[in-house]
Amino acid sequence: MTENDAVLAANLAFYAAFAERDVEAMDRIWSRSVPVSCIHPGWTALTGRKAVLESWRDILGNPEAPRIECHDEEVMFAGTMAVVLCEEALPSSTMAATNLFVREDGDWRLVHHQASPVLVPGRDLRRTGRGIRIRRDF
Amino acid sequence: MTENDAVLAANLAFYAAFAERDVEAMDRIWSRSVPVSCIHPGWTALTGRKAVLESWRDILGNPEAPRIECHDEEVMFAGTMAVVLCEEALPSSTMAATNLFVREDGDWRLVHHQASPVLVPGRDLRRTGRGIRIRRDF
Repeated sequence: MTENDAVLAANLAFYAAFAERDVEAMDRIWSRSVPVSCIHPGWTALTGRKAVLESWRDILGNPEAPRIECHDEEVMFAGTMAVVLCEEALPSSTMAATNLFVREDGDWRLVHHQASPVLVPGRDLRRTGRGIRIRRDF
Repeated sequence: MTENDAVLAANLAFYAAFAERDVEAMDRIWSRSVPVSCIHPGWTALTGRKAVLESWRDILGNPEAPRIECHDEEVMFAGTMAVVLCEEALPSSTMAATNLFVREDGDWRLVHHQASPVLVPGRDLRRTGRGIRIRRDF
């Protein structure tokens, strides 16, 4: 397995834990050697393993939590870390996500996650290239 | 200057370029050695220096671009990278931001930026700790 595939597998494991509401798997995915953080949609940052994992326990324990799938993953390596950008498909919305991983004990572990709602269709924007109009949600 | 201060200075330089609509300063801030990416509020990811800097030229060239200031910065080091979490104060909204930096030619350069609107007051949430209710913007 290439490092690229290993990072993608770790990213998929994160979304599998999310979709299956698997609190123990979610716990295993997050780093224990590096301070972790998480910005859920609409939220300010949560920092520290305790606050981040508590937030995930609340989300995964919510009976109304929807199905989620990720797609269009892109992996970038920078130093000893890997950044995965992907989109999260939910029943009624799409999120753009940043997932930051660090190599730890032979595995890639999540250090930081941020997801934010996509308000304009991504495919069109991404393909337009030059001349795109930037919309900031001021 | 400590490494922590150096990262904070790089983060402030990013927001100074933004606030002053300084395209050249914005260009200098982004890494040239690592693939860069950016998720503006409401957008999917832009990847590659050309697309990212084009988006910033559009934003900085917009006469309606508002004032922006960052506050509540937190720096975390992970491997050879630094992650800055901060909030962006705009006239009518607050954004939660992730800024990822890499050490390059003696300076910290921006590799990835994501900003997303804060829909609930951050101070209260961050201080509440245990028992917080998670709101995902599904």
